[in-house]
Amino acid sequence: MKFLTFYKSTEILSMLKFLKIFFAVCFIFSCTKQSNELPKDVKVSHPNLILTQKSVSEIKSNLGSIPLFDKTLAAAKREVDLEISKGIRVPIPKDMAGGYTHTQHKLNYASMQKAGVLFQLLGDEKYAIYIRDMLLEYAKMFPKLDRHPQIRSYARGKLFWQCLNDSNWLVFTSQAYDCIYDWLPKEQTEYLNKTLFKPYANFLSIETPQYFNRVHNHSTWGNVAVGMIGLVMDDDDLVNSALYGLKKEEVDLTAKDNDGGFIFDKEGKAGFFANLDSPFSPDGFYTEGPYYQRYAMYPFLIFAEALQNKKPELKIFEYKNGVLIKAVDALLNLTDADGEFFPLNDGQKGMSYYTSSLVSAVDIAYYYGAQKPELLSIAKKQNKVQLDATGLSVALGLKEGKEKPFIKKSIELTDGSKGDEGGIGILRHQKGDETLALVMKYTGQGLSHGHYDKLSFSFYENGDEVLQDYGLSRFVNVEQKNGGGYLKENKTFAKHTIAHNTIVQNETSHFKYKYAVASKNHSEKYLFDVSNPAFQVVSATEENAYIETKFHRSMIMVKDESIEKPFIIDIFKVNSNKKNQYDLPFYYFGQIISSSFNYNSPKTLSVLGNSNGYQHLWKEGAGIANSESIQFTWLDNKRFYTLTSATNKNDEVILARIGANDPKFNLRKDPALIIRKKNVKNTIYASIIESHGTYDPVKEVASNAYSNFSKIKVLKDNTNYSAIKIYFKKGKEKLLILSNSDNSKNKKHTLKIDTKEYNWFGSYYYN
Amino acid sequence: MKFLTFYKSTEILSMLKFLKIFFAVCFIFSCTKQSNELPKDVKVSHPNLILTQKSVSEIKSNLGSIPLFDKTLAAAKREVDLEISKGIRVPIPKDMAGGYTHTQHKLNYASMQKAGVLFQLLGDEKYAIYIRDMLLEYAKMFPKLDRHPQIRSYARGKLFWQCLNDSNWLVFTSQAYDCIYDWLPKEQTEYLNKTLFKPYANFLSIETPQYFNRVHNHSTWGNVAVGMIGLVMDDDDLVNSALYGLKKEEVDLTAKDNDGGFIFDKEGKAGFFANLDSPFSPDGFYTEGPYYQRYAMYPFLIFAEALQNKKPELKIFEYKNGVLIKAVDALLNLTDADGEFFPLNDGQKGMSYYTSSLVSAVDIAYYYGAQKPELLSIAKKQNKVQLDATGLSVALGLKEGKEKPFIKKSIELTDGSKGDEGGIGILRHQKGDETLALVMKYTGQGLSHGHYDKLSFSFYENGDEVLQDYGLSRFVNVEQKNGGGYLKENKTFAKHTIAHNTIVQNETSHFKYKYAVASKNHSEKYLFDVSNPAFQVVSATEENAYIETKFHRSMIMVKDESIEKPFIIDIFKVNSNKKNQYDLPFYYFGQIISSSFNYNSPKTLSVLGNSNGYQHLWKEGAGIANSESIQFTWLDNKRFYTLTSATNKNDEVILARIGANDPKFNLRKDPALIIRKKNVKNTIYASIIESHGTYDPVKEVASNAYSNFSKIKVLKDNTNYSAIKIYFKKGKEKLLILSNSDNSKNKKHTLKIDTKEYNWFGSYYYN
Repeated sequence: MKFLTFYKSTEILSMLKFLKIFFAVCFIFSCTKQSNELPKDVKVSHPNLILTQKSVSEIKSNLGSIPLFDKTLAAAKREVDLEISKGIRVPIPKDMAGGYTHTQHKLNYASMQKAGVLFQLLGDEKYAIYIRDMLLEYAKMFPKLDRHPQIRSYARGKLFWQCLNDSNWLVFTSQAYDCIYDWLPKEQTEYLNKTLFKPYANFLSIETPQYFNRVHNHSTWGNVAVGMIGLVMDDDDLVNSALYGLKKEEVDLTAKDNDGGFIFDKEGKAGFFANLDSPFSPDGFYTEGPYYQRYAMYPFLIFAEALQNKKPELKIFEYKNGVLIKAVDALLNLTDADGEFFPLNDGQKGMSYYTSSLVSAVDIAYYYGAQKPELLSIAKKQNKVQLDATGLSVALGLKEGKEKPFIKKSIELTDGSKGDEGGIGILRHQKGDETLALVMKYTGQGLSHGHYDKLSFSFYENGDEVLQDYGLSRFVNVEQKNGGGYLKENKTFAKHTIAHNTIVQNETSHFKYKYAVASKNHSEKYLFDVSNPAFQVVSATEENAYIETKFHRSMIMVKDESIEKPFIIDIFKVNSNKKNQYDLPFYYFGQIISSSFNYNSPKTLSVLGNSNGYQHLWKEGAGIANSESIQFTWLDNKRFYTLTSATNKNDEVILARIGANDPKFNLRKDPALIIRKKNVKNTIYASIIESHGTYDPVKEVASNAYSNFSKIKVLKDNTNYSAIKIYFKKGKEKLLILSNSDNSKNKKHTLKIDTKEYNWFGSYYYN
Repeated sequence: MKFLTFYKSTEILSMLKFLKIFFAVCFIFSCTKQSNELPKDVKVSHPNLILTQKSVSEIKSNLGSIPLFDKTLAAAKREVDLEISKGIRVPIPKDMAGGYTHTQHKLNYASMQKAGVLFQLLGDEKYAIYIRDMLLEYAKMFPKLDRHPQIRSYARGKLFWQCLNDSNWLVFTSQAYDCIYDWLPKEQTEYLNKTLFKPYANFLSIETPQYFNRVHNHSTWGNVAVGMIGLVMDDDDLVNSALYGLKKEEVDLTAKDNDGGFIFDKEGKAGFFANLDSPFSPDGFYTEGPYYQRYAMYPFLIFAEALQNKKPELKIFEYKNGVLIKAVDALLNLTDADGEFFPLNDGQKGMSYYTSSLVSAVDIAYYYGAQKPELLSIAKKQNKVQLDATGLSVALGLKEGKEKPFIKKSIELTDGSKGDEGGIGILRHQKGDETLALVMKYTGQGLSHGHYDKLSFSFYENGDEVLQDYGLSRFVNVEQKNGGGYLKENKTFAKHTIAHNTIVQNETSHFKYKYAVASKNHSEKYLFDVSNPAFQVVSATEENAYIETKFHRSMIMVKDESIEKPFIIDIFKVNSNKKNQYDLPFYYFGQIISSSFNYNSPKTLSVLGNSNGYQHLWKEGAGIANSESIQFTWLDNKRFYTLTSATNKNDEVILARIGANDPKFNLRKDPALIIRKKNVKNTIYASIIESHGTYDPVKEVASNAYSNFSKIKVLKDNTNYSAIKIYFKKGKEKLLILSNSDNSKNKKHTLKIDTKEYNWFGSYYYN
């Protein structure tokens, strides 16, 4: 079969027509996958990357009897058959994300990857032909391509406006290529390797070091793209670059990207291992946040699977105490009741564990981890599997009815490569289908996608946001909105502190919004104790967001037997050496039902401030607390919520709304209540957040439309202790004392309030 | 059993304890409903109102084998048992809607009505005792009650702040009373009749004529309350008042209520028949709109059922050609895909056919109508039935699997007692679960709950509002919001023309917002033709909203084979004798994606105007069209929508948002696009409204994010013809010509545009 020597790409196509017929004939007569008898100078027979000869054989013997796998395969077949019927479309790159050429190239790699699987599992050569013909089109085009004409990225790609998408292309296409590698004549693989794949890998790495050699989700994709194609071509140079990065001397360590992030890791580490070492905490939390973790999980895990298949000696799934498997568990815990990721840092709302990268992640974690039956219940919801050995094992597990519910419990996920740079604390309550979740953030900055929101929080009821984290300002892949890229308002609002439920001092964002400073710091966990389900505490401090100011926030989910649902006590303590203004926003949704304080209502709307995100807030109302405790009730999603907050009489209460200075209407016009304390050094915000009632528009009945509390009062607040009393409407009172300076469990504390002495052990008293 | 002579109410209770035991013993020995052998001076044995002796016997013989009936009965039993366990609570009236005493009295009548049914169907005397004890409490309290202390209503009640709620009480309580009437000793019925029920009926009628003697949903409740108790007590005077109203000489025909509505019908007609004659059109459309029709249906139908049982000679279900049954069908057609009523006029969003009054309505319409199997599918969704003969028949029908889907088709519902006062035109499209519905309003004013929005429309996709009717401004039964009553903003915004998707001339509402003028006028239907599913037309005119200005709006739902979903062509023609300013708003939802026109974006927000609802709109942006056609694309509910509209170059485009001058945050902060034409006499608005794409936040894919159209152009517009060309992006063009002055089907038309002559028959040309 060595009749085909090397030809120019322009001449190949006509020959291929003959070849097609020839191979088809071979195929009919041999009826096995091995119909192309290739020279045996390859180290291992393909496929050997994600699918292997062994797994293909296992899957084939099960086909037709593994419902979820069969279903996913049938769907893939429908999709690819449709694409094949449309013909090969490899347009000259031109458009931004969301535009035609972008979308088509994206569709191509997804179709090729599936076609590779279909070829291996169904044995129908039309899929191999489809991949081959498309690859030859790409090989013909690639050498002529300069960088993409859209000039918005710090690392412009070839097929796409940024290398990131080109890496996506290569990660998926490598898998397709692996599936037909042995089927292709050697001359053709040599041609493709030389003309398309090796140059593409070089382009993404040595020609774009500012993209490839970072610790960042972008670079992970770059590393994996280069690594995957390296594994397919048995090119150890590429695999080594992928695993360990480019050589130090080739790169400028001080360069920054267009987000203000460092282009290179401070220690000069790079490559897949560096991206695994540094952004992942030992708990599997990825410092950029769940939205980007979700995005990065696919390359991390698919490459790990490939490495496990081809280089099992690396024991990649045991690396860093099994962090890759833990990361999947962490990520599933970072979702609300609907499976949507908490939009910490840059996160687009609505992204959930139904995304295809999580299908892969769950299947790989199940197969290479401890076959946790809880993962099967997620896979069942996802209603599809990865079409390889991992998906087979999940489909078999489900067929055998092995799944157990994945119950999300209260959990702390540490941040930092060693787990000592703060973290995320999630307090949860579940009763039947009713869930509450409080998410408090006390992590490090989270690389360039991080937001400046130390000790911020968000609050969920069931799958609904109650007090929101704004998330990012972007419409991913909506071409009309800045080509689908980040919007200006992401930097001018969404990343700023005032866009979050945490304190802003003197209308300036944390770390003065300086990435270099923020990146060097992180909050410190003070306490995370969920041992008592009726009194779950998360508490953390932040000493660097502002010079000479210390924050200490404690959030407690309390289940009181007299009240249907748990409520949140939120104690935010501030100590400073100088007098400041403090703003604490609560970004609620829906309609205001009542407020205990009076406020003015301006005839014209002005902005709340001039910079640091304040320029994007309209001031819809403002008043003086004029009381030692205020209440604010709103109705959202047919539920009544109340914030009860201890105030000084001259505290200001501001009703704000996002949307000022937003000429393109990029921002959502969501409201916030801001409690402002002026001209104080030390202070404490003490609040109760409660979901207490419902409105039924069909029965027209408002149930429990009023708060269960009459007020909250700070009795004492000093360096060592904060004592807060909460007053139930039915007359009951509860005293909460927090030990501010000693979080040890066994320490004995004594505090006299008025004439009464309180004694307790540990970091809090509540009675 | 005549040992109980008449006692003061204070003395009765102690005796009742003895009586309880005595009756219980009787009951055990007799084991039938007839245990209290009463003197035979009553005309018919009770129950004979809603339940009858015959139906009770039929139901009892089926119990245990009629799943939906059994289930509803079990739920009623649980509810009532819970109430009985809490004890009798009859507090002195004090609170507004949503407050404790209001809610408790409401709960009481609902529980008593169910307890009556339980007593009859289950034979357990505890339910009779519960009703009796409660009635005696009411009888003790009633004579001492003055009108309710809350002074907000034009017709204050006794137990509630308005007579309306007192009538609710009496309508339900009459049914409970009927169920125990024969069980009670005659002295006790005489006592209750004399002390509680007759005075209550008199209070609601002759003592409150301004409430009782109107044509209004309030009065319907009043009439029925008096009629129901009249039937129970066999009091023909009360029944006659209920059916025909108070005598003319007793009332002041020029009085107005607190909504500006006439208190008395112009012709002085009143009572149940008047309320059936005048507000219902022959199609069963109720002129106040679906929200109040839903509210009025219960008294209309429950009284009709009672009349059918006790006075079958009235043939009430045949009255006005069977309008009561037709009304149920009309009401079901006035819902979106989720069963929620279109919020025309004063309507609170979220109210749906799941409400209990519609359960009754559907069951009664099924039983007394033609047993339409489509009604069974609604009953199945409602998942409960009325606990009487009608509910039995529905439960049996469902048990026998007789139901068919209730498919909502395009439909016109005429308004006016003779059906000649305009109407509602609904254009619909359904494909699988995907539905589009366009609702155009060209009715009369709709009594005092009417809004000033001639020729307005709303647009729905599936169960979601795309272009909204604002509905009312009220939080029904949310006590914090003005005691659950109408909010000031209902009059200052929601009822005004600018709150709707129709034209405002010179920033003044239709009929100068004068109820007396509006009530004398109605729009005229021009055309409703849905014979071609690919080109469905509704068209109507309005000549009185403004003096010397004529409106003619035509809305067409077009299904073009080249586009997935139908689009709407909206042609709004204006002719006036003088130059005016015209504003046409489109109240969209969600985020702006792109606009073809430039607009400024003010640094501070000001109101759009000073009165007529304009004072409640912030001007968020304004620009000049500067083109012969503009486009505006938004994203809502993960779908992309575009408005394409023909403009004159100097037309103004305003981006507005509700919420100015709203100190209590009563309004929703929803956005609108307003196209403003200044200083013109005659003009035409020609627009395309399309739902063209989707956004998937999990796949991060924007599909068909761009409009299918490049522009729309008015080629010709005169008294007789309007010719509009729409331009598809793919190059296709379509010409639409509307015959403005002749809507006959067979008329031949000829029009020359430029050099080409077009000939067609009927009211439009489209090709």
